[in-house]
Amino acid sequence: MPDRQNDEAATAAFAPPLLGEPYLLTPGPLTTAAAVKQAMLRDWGSWDGDFHALTAELRRRLLAMIGDTQGEFDCVPMQGSGTFCVEAMLGTLVPREGKVLVLANGAYGLRAAQILRTLGRAHAVIDKGDYLPPRGEEVGAALDADPAITHVLAIHCETSSGILNPVAEISQAVEARGRKLLIDSMSAFGAVPADAGTLRYEAIVSSANKCIEGVPGFGFVIARKSALEAARGNCHSLSLDLHDQWTVMEKTGQWRFTPPTHVVAAFIEALRLHAAEGGVAARGARYVQNRDVLVAGMRAAGFETLLADRWLSPIIVTFFCPADPNFAFPRFYELMKAKGFLIYPGKLTVAESFRVGCIGHLDATVMRAVVAAARQSLDEMGVASAAPAPDVLGERAALVA
Amino acid sequence: MPDRQNDEAATAAFAPPLLGEPYLLTPGPLTTAAAVKQAMLRDWGSWDGDFHALTAELRRRLLAMIGDTQGEFDCVPMQGSGTFCVEAMLGTLVPREGKVLVLANGAYGLRAAQILRTLGRAHAVIDKGDYLPPRGEEVGAALDADPAITHVLAIHCETSSGILNPVAEISQAVEARGRKLLIDSMSAFGAVPADAGTLRYEAIVSSANKCIEGVPGFGFVIARKSALEAARGNCHSLSLDLHDQWTVMEKTGQWRFTPPTHVVAAFIEALRLHAAEGGVAARGARYVQNRDVLVAGMRAAGFETLLADRWLSPIIVTFFCPADPNFAFPRFYELMKAKGFLIYPGKLTVAESFRVGCIGHLDATVMRAVVAAARQSLDEMGVASAAPAPDVLGERAALVA
Ligand SMILES: Cc1ncc(COP(=O)(O)O)c(C=O)c1O
Ligand SMILES: Cc1ncc(COP(=O)(O)O)c(C=O)c1O
Repeated sequence: MPDRQNDEAATAAFAPPLLGEPYLLTPGPLTTAAAVKQAMLRDWGSWDGDFHALTAELRRRLLAMIGDTQGEFDCVPMQGSGTFCVEAMLGTLVPREGKVLVLANGAYGLRAAQILRTLGRAHAVIDKGDYLPPRGEEVGAALDADPAITHVLAIHCETSSGILNPVAEISQAVEARGRKLLIDSMSAFGAVPADAGTLRYEAIVSSANKCIEGVPGFGFVIARKSALEAARGNCHSLSLDLHDQWTVMEKTGQWRFTPPTHVVAAFIEALRLHAAEGGVAARGARYVQNRDVLVAGMRAAGFETLLADRWLSPIIVTFFCPADPNFAFPRFYELMKAKGFLIYPGKLTVAESFRVGCIGHLDATVMRAVVAAARQSLDEMGVASAAPAPDVLGERAALVA
Repeated sequence: MPDRQNDEAATAAFAPPLLGEPYLLTPGPLTTAAAVKQAMLRDWGSWDGDFHALTAELRRRLLAMIGDTQGEFDCVPMQGSGTFCVEAMLGTLVPREGKVLVLANGAYGLRAAQILRTLGRAHAVIDKGDYLPPRGEEVGAALDADPAITHVLAIHCETSSGILNPVAEISQAVEARGRKLLIDSMSAFGAVPADAGTLRYEAIVSSANKCIEGVPGFGFVIARKSALEAARGNCHSLSLDLHDQWTVMEKTGQWRFTPPTHVVAAFIEALRLHAAEGGVAARGARYVQNRDVLVAGMRAAGFETLLADRWLSPIIVTFFCPADPNFAFPRFYELMKAKGFLIYPGKLTVAESFRVGCIGHLDATVMRAVVAAARQSLDEMGVASAAPAPDVLGERAALVA
């Protein structure tokens, strides 16, 4: 596979982090560009016009990313982590007497269901386990069977496994039945297309520290204006009320409560770099290449991926832990860290695994170094084969058959 | 009044912001030290041990600030702005069948009542308007009259006027009646003492971007462990559940959901600078001097403060707008900004006013420059006298009589 970054200038754009600072091969917080962090070197008055301009630019650039040519959507940033924004979306856009069908195949789908449980909102769950995507057909059948369902929540990329869920066919099933789709695109937005012209949804949520490559501190919901307008009084929380946040921002240009000013300034720089790279298509292409280099290299080293190629996202890849008794994840983690790479533990309910992120300010050169570091770490642990236990593979084969 | 910073080295510690960047005379976000912002120049893996160590240091240093020698308290940081943390405290620590007496004398007290209304929790409000503090006696009488009240919420410094509320006498009144005190010390914590040995409370809340001089992105609740333990299942929200955040942090050393890593790193630097300056006493003394220089200078220029000296906090001071028809706040704001100072609009329900913060990485030299800039701005506007309208002063006199 040839490098996309093959001239010196382009390579310099992906310079390594500061001396002693590891690359983050994690699904956010992730490695960000130096310019993004440097944008935090000044203080902003949150009431000042200069900061209002940043907020306006942020909303405009995010809306442009979904190609909302009809002006049907608006973008509402919200303080807190991504989960806060998922809760804000569910609590504000689903009426109190609504019912949500949650499509779960991992930790983040289950968390959405937990939010609804805490809020006391009616919901049902399709739980596909760790390996399998919810398909349009079964979503359609579930909606046909339960006319009380008003909304469907889908996870775009389920980051706990790395699966890229088939949101297009899910969206069609939902739209055909006159229900409303909410998408948790936390780890995909900005790198996987979510064009409002081709994918129909009521709202989509993501956060600053994922594929746009900002630093953590807030997230955003892009929602139909009609949905935001209708949502007054729905929310269970003052802080997480997306309707209020929206109306105040529309009227004053300000966030309702103190915004994370430095994080916002960093995000503006990240948005500009995203556009300069070529937008969603170019960002996605770089991540696809990162993933391809990683998966090919790790497979050549004997590792097995959790997922079949068809469902591998360009966001994060889950590998089974080697069955070799000399392998221990905490040791592997430290050996990789000593070589300058932070990897991520697994989040599967069943098999032992670990994850390697493909997102952030990284390119194929970095991914090759990750593979080399993994090989060397296995050597240092005395692991002869990276193959997982046969029963793990057997179980996977049975499930995906 | 002599300068506390009178040698060159100390003055250099309060060097002006970057060229072209104004000083923030606002109650947070505020002007921070260069070292605080520079601490954001690296990326942290939120799952990594190096970051866990930051979180542990943050909790330890904040607990030390209240002198919790008995180990009765714990510190729980929470993503989002200060309001998110007030909501987390109320939603988690007040049982669903509890009742809260809110002591309001400005916007933040009223906001706490609004949170309780949104949550559907029983509450009563003592509203003192803009000028007057709630006193221990009237709190005691209200508690005697309503045995259903389980908790009292007091605002330490009501930032909308700058009043420093008498929390010591309030605390005594609450304790004598066996009720529980919750303190919103957002804008005071770290500069005004809140010693657990002398002031009795169930929990106290503040945020990163106030008197500790960090950047915005999270806040924290310091609460009795007994209160945190008893709070399981109380919260109306998953994201804002302080009990869950606490138990996960105790078990894993991690924040439940993605923390604002860079903001946390900046806060650690801010905490170290706070300690190096001499802790709460020294920080408070610098702010007192800032306020004294400001108030003396502005009064000499003809401005009147909203509050009598007795209630003036060292955090932020409210001045009445001059009655002179040539005065217009938006113009005054821009003239001050052009001179390198961002001031703050008023937040009073009655009279026209503006506010000047005394907190942040500022010293008496800066405050003298602020006063000079205010004088010059009045000149530029052709304002002959900075005196407010006589009826405003009459109203104030009647109220505080
Ligand atoms: C798909 C998905 N949803 C929700 C979240 C939660 O975001 P946060 O950790 O910022 O709360 C994540 C985090 O990685 C995610 O990947
Ligand atoms: C006393 C008080 N309470 C609550 C808040 C709300 O904090 P935030 O704006 O961070 O939500 C503030 C903000 O200045 C405050 O001063």
